Amino acid sequence: MNVENLSGEASGWLRDDGPENDVVLSSRVRLARNLAGYPFLTGASGHQQNELLSRCQQRILDANLSPQILWVDLPQSSRLDRQLLAERHIISQQHSQADHPRGVAVSSDENMAIMVNEEDHLRIQSLRSGLELESAYMVADEVDNRLEQVLEFAYSSRFGYLTACPTNVGTGIRVSVMLHLPGLKLTGEIEKVRRSAKDMHLAVRGFYGEGTEAMGDLFQVSNQTTLGRNEEQVLEDFGAVVIPQMIEYERAARQALQAKRSAVLDDKVFRALGTLTHARLLGGEDALHLLSYARLGVALGRISDIDLSTINELYLLTQPAHLQKMAGEPLDEPERRELRARFVRQRLGT
Amino acid sequence: MNVENLSGEASGWLRDDGPENDVVLSSRVRLARNLAGYPFLTGASGHQQNELLSRCQQRILDANLSPQILWVDLPQSSRLDRQLLAERHIISQQHSQADHPRGVAVSSDENMAIMVNEEDHLRIQSLRSGLELESAYMVADEVDNRLEQVLEFAYSSRFGYLTACPTNVGTGIRVSVMLHLPGLKLTGEIEKVRRSAKDMHLAVRGFYGEGTEAMGDLFQVSNQTTLGRNEEQVLEDFGAVVIPQMIEYERAARQALQAKRSAVLDDKVFRALGTLTHARLLGGEDALHLLSYARLGVALGRISDIDLSTINELYLLTQPAHLQKMAGEPLDEPERRELRARFVRQRLGT
Repeated sequence: MNVENLSGEASGWLRDDGPENDVVLSSRVRLARNLAGYPFLTGASGHQQNELLSRCQQRILDANLSPQILWVDLPQSSRLDRQLLAERHIISQQHSQADHPRGVAVSSDENMAIMVNEEDHLRIQSLRSGLELESAYMVADEVDNRLEQVLEFAYSSRFGYLTACPTNVGTGIRVSVMLHLPGLKLTGEIEKVRRSAKDMHLAVRGFYGEGTEAMGDLFQVSNQTTLGRNEEQVLEDFGAVVIPQMIEYERAARQALQAKRSAVLDDKVFRALGTLTHARLLGGEDALHLLSYARLGVALGRISDIDLSTINELYLLTQPAHLQKMAGEPLDEPERRELRARFVRQRLGT
Repeated sequence: MNVENLSGEASGWLRDDGPENDVVLSSRVRLARNLAGYPFLTGASGHQQNELLSRCQQRILDANLSPQILWVDLPQSSRLDRQLLAERHIISQQHSQADHPRGVAVSSDENMAIMVNEEDHLRIQSLRSGLELESAYMVADEVDNRLEQVLEFAYSSRFGYLTACPTNVGTGIRVSVMLHLPGLKLTGEIEKVRRSAKDMHLAVRGFYGEGTEAMGDLFQVSNQTTLGRNEEQVLEDFGAVVIPQMIEYERAARQALQAKRSAVLDDKVFRALGTLTHARLLGGEDALHLLSYARLGVALGRISDIDLSTINELYLLTQPAHLQKMAGEPLDEPERRELRARFVRQRLGT
């Protein structure tokens, strides 16, 4: 198994039909861990970074965390492979672009990945389709427990797990969901939701996480602080209160649009579908924007011959590295726009 | 036969496949005539206008100019009927909106019409599909000859036919063609063509003639002066030299686009088709704009399952009065956008 095997279809966490998938694309739980006896990564020498890397790699592979696990040494990987991993949300953009010794272990179903030498020595992440934070947490927690048997983590009895960034100290947990909020965008309520998320100390980001703008009405919402609260409290607050509330806002916005502006809504939805099924050139942002309306149309039952997972897949597979893997060669921007358009037409069956 | 009969499909001159119809939608020849012994219309009293109207109407109907001829008294017609006649290019916008005594006689195939009490007492016009100025002229000339046997026209042995506007004095002829010039628009050469048309004393107008902007890349080109040249010279210059030259410019622009920017061209064409076949709301200008690209795609053989006459028909039938006739009731702007979209989808077979 290698990176090539990953590119052909969407990861399970995006392909499956998880709960609340009309609004929630995916759930992610991430645990930050650092090895005792080493400085945090930014303070570590090259030698220490290498030592951390090989040690973590070995322990991870020995632990049989998944029936099949792929180890990727990032400095030895091509730029395209690294970009592909970032596009699949297996690694962060930062982890893809850095130039120090680092790697990632990923399970064959891509539902679990462990970045080594990212901001923290270890970042264990588990991904699920739809709103599935508890089962995502169970996987991450299990991996954490297994690794803790073979690695000593930096831990303070007063603060909990020590992490490179103070916002992660304590449980080191970050929970996030990818929400599709076209309804709130169309009704103009999205800024209100953004502001109230900020008041609740939530981070709202774009499709690619930190530092990216929300494109295609996709918003990654995550908790920002963990100190002083245990994992269960974080999961409960976030997954059972905050996010369900946002889902309800979005659904209410969609219902209001259907009730009051159904012709306008249908027009947007079907124009998007018409463009997706006919365009000969399709830019990345343009595609996300059009897919967003198509997804809304599918979620509301206006479009009946396409399913949500097809749209989700297209979000992933129409990204630049994926297109180049598909073509088997490097493509410049105009070539990618052409292939993206062709691929979308083909997948939407026209 | 009444105005209702006209609304269901496009006029013959727009539905048929005339010569050069990849670029030329239609040809029109118009002759301006005034009755001797009466002032021009603007100088005529209400009584004189009424007398002119009834006299011309009677002579026209008695002359058996066409197997079936429809007479429409415009002040007695509804606003919607008058608008319909203007949309079908049977009468001018001015003739539709004026409020003095006036009318129009139109042959059942709509290839010939005579406006009474427009700017001149009589305006005989003949329309043809494609570039067909000579046969259009033959019809208008024949009507002119027949009417001259029963009406005395104002004529000066020095100047020729006398007309309300000096630019028409002489033969009173105006020839015009409706050109579809999306290629020149896309290559940016359209302004150059406009300027050289001006240098040749040609008028370049929009789809609805005088005072309208070019929409949907449709340009009505006509001669501006007639004095000192006979009909044959005007027809020869215009129909055999000037217009064929413009047609060649347009075809060269299309070829250049196909050769150098085929992906961009295809993208525009198919996005337009996708929107036309999927939109749920379609504004009038939006429709003209999209139909223009679709027409280009058909003319270039990029779109194969739609023919030019279908597109031509849609230009006509998607206009406001036509839509309201179709619905059988007055429609406000949002309702028209909805019906326009539905009708276009239906006609394009999706």
